[in-house]
Amino acid sequence: MNADRVGIVGVGHTSFGRHAESSVQELAFDALRVALADAGLTRDDLDATVIAAVPEYHRQRSIAGVVQEYLGLAGRPTWLTEAACASGSAAVRTAWLAIRSGEHDVVAVIGCQKMTDLPTADILGLMGRVGDVQWEAGFGTTFPGYYAMFAQRYAHEYGDVRPSLTAVAVKNHENGALNPHAMFKKAVDAAKVEASDEVASPLRVFDCCANADGAACVILAREDRARALPARPVWIAGLGAASDTMSVLTRENLTSLPAARRAAREAYAMAGLGPTDVQVAEVHDCFTIAEILAYEDLGFCEPGAGARLAVDGATRRGGRIPVNPDGGLKAKGHPIGATGVSMTHEIVKQLRGEAGPRQVQGARVGLTHNVGGIGQYCFVQVLMVED
Amino acid sequence: MNADRVGIVGVGHTSFGRHAESSVQELAFDALRVALADAGLTRDDLDATVIAAVPEYHRQRSIAGVVQEYLGLAGRPTWLTEAACASGSAAVRTAWLAIRSGEHDVVAVIGCQKMTDLPTADILGLMGRVGDVQWEAGFGTTFPGYYAMFAQRYAHEYGDVRPSLTAVAVKNHENGALNPHAMFKKAVDAAKVEASDEVASPLRVFDCCANADGAACVILAREDRARALPARPVWIAGLGAASDTMSVLTRENLTSLPAARRAAREAYAMAGLGPTDVQVAEVHDCFTIAEILAYEDLGFCEPGAGARLAVDGATRRGGRIPVNPDGGLKAKGHPIGATGVSMTHEIVKQLRGEAGPRQVQGARVGLTHNVGGIGQYCFVQVLMVED
Repeated sequence: MNADRVGIVGVGHTSFGRHAESSVQELAFDALRVALADAGLTRDDLDATVIAAVPEYHRQRSIAGVVQEYLGLAGRPTWLTEAACASGSAAVRTAWLAIRSGEHDVVAVIGCQKMTDLPTADILGLMGRVGDVQWEAGFGTTFPGYYAMFAQRYAHEYGDVRPSLTAVAVKNHENGALNPHAMFKKAVDAAKVEASDEVASPLRVFDCCANADGAACVILAREDRARALPARPVWIAGLGAASDTMSVLTRENLTSLPAARRAAREAYAMAGLGPTDVQVAEVHDCFTIAEILAYEDLGFCEPGAGARLAVDGATRRGGRIPVNPDGGLKAKGHPIGATGVSMTHEIVKQLRGEAGPRQVQGARVGLTHNVGGIGQYCFVQVLMVED
Repeated sequence: MNADRVGIVGVGHTSFGRHAESSVQELAFDALRVALADAGLTRDDLDATVIAAVPEYHRQRSIAGVVQEYLGLAGRPTWLTEAACASGSAAVRTAWLAIRSGEHDVVAVIGCQKMTDLPTADILGLMGRVGDVQWEAGFGTTFPGYYAMFAQRYAHEYGDVRPSLTAVAVKNHENGALNPHAMFKKAVDAAKVEASDEVASPLRVFDCCANADGAACVILAREDRARALPARPVWIAGLGAASDTMSVLTRENLTSLPAARRAAREAYAMAGLGPTDVQVAEVHDCFTIAEILAYEDLGFCEPGAGARLAVDGATRRGGRIPVNPDGGLKAKGHPIGATGVSMTHEIVKQLRGEAGPRQVQGARVGLTHNVGGIGQYCFVQVLMVED
């Protein structure tokens, strides 16, 4: 049987940051425990788990198995889904497919990642090789380098981009200061952002997200099961998935991610909604320029108008379209496998009206935008609650 | 809409072995090209691709992206599914879920893996860490060591196991000699097996499969699309998925893999068939003892009777239940991400009557049994053709 709708019935989250004392399975457990309690479910209710993680950061191989054992779920199906930094949303999508297919009724998606055990240089190398190894990474490209090129090109096309990058950093730190799970719970002012060290021109330290450890969990259920639970279900109204070339040098331009445009188009079409219906969004701000591009790719504004949107404050809480109310990757931290799941977690909290001091008032429709690599993958979710 | 049945409409395979000159994306392309031609489809017909691979063997990170670009499929959804050596079957299952959900009509699953670029010692270390790192791998366990323990325990419970291990090796090499894709196309006799070097007692060199490079592809389609294509569809009649503890020390016994029993039970129940209906099987013989355990876990015989089944020749071509007609992991080679897809490939060829000299006459129902790690995951497929 095909359940037409899939609801999110429980969410959980660890703090993001450095968890030197915790293994990846312990982080996964902490997120699942909260999500089960939130949903009013026990482990026995789970038909399967989908693990989102990027494997090469962990010494333990094939972590779905060790997580499944530690959660006390050995026996039931589990598998790992990987799509670089979009692994979390890719995993949510496979769980959604599993429920829509009629095969499972209740599935937990756990994004979990440890990164800070590794030296930063190793991480930079691993990350760089998410760029095309044959044609690009072999020549020394790094993630900050790629996104710096995007920012340079954006400035070339549309004029000075620096004020908008600063506006994104300031906004996301302001939001992160209100998020108990955020790695950096500290507001910063424009002067501090612009005085920070340059990483890859024009990107500075405060334009870049941080490697982190952490886990997030969302539990999905088919409609009838979701309606029978105490919490108000958040429905997956639309879901888009797309890919792009591995090599950035083959792209038509550097001021848009075609995978994001395609995934957004699909998600909006499935939901029967458009960008103007979105009241709160979590977007993939691995670098501040990425958030500007996301505004445009998601249709929150026209191409070239993203910088203005940031500077005008339209994406702050209380603005026309609040973006990254939880602080985004920038202030929350970016444990790569967990990030997509964390985005869904935040939108669920917002749509339920449970986001506390960072609540976007009255939001009923929310969106997540999770990018893998340098736009090689993008997944967009449109989530909503009933009136 | 929920397509009740999912058909396999095309299959492709590279040779398994050492491909020093080919990248992983080139291997993937070679398998996809054959599968598309086999199905009478073009790339434009594919809605999505699921990549099966174990990432840490490749220098390129997040290979779904680089494969998707090289195949000329950038734009469409892709993701990687990992469940150690069962990644291939885990990927087939997510493609099956995607079609059953109504989200996609035609999905290509590509298992692709390069291993031989790495020194054997590195591979041994990576493999060992699919065992529980905290409690087992840290003390020096390796894959041959784990399976040697299974063999020792089996001998302790049921008597001398060596003749059955030899029988499996001889049978699988006999079959592999008829498979143009096999890494070792050479028959061996019992004396040669038993004179080979001991790896981990009682396992000898000819009891162990070999690391390999290679790719395999299967294309899945919903029922109406499958029926409209020229090739005779092979239907996925049953599909079971299960997990087990990461640590082997917590298992109740060492002569059965509970995940395999559970996955088989589910697959048989879904298909409405039982072990006596299976006419040909591909099982996960990473070591010869694993094939003996598989006979029992799949219900081809009672517990303890697997050794006898091998020695009696019941699992040779022409026997009661032919197993691993393509040579199995033992003779075909084991490029870990590709192996599960390769198993499905062989059963499709057998059920279509296209297996040439290794054909099992008249087979209409076949089975695959793909184990990840040391039984941490197992996926079982029951496949069939219509009369």
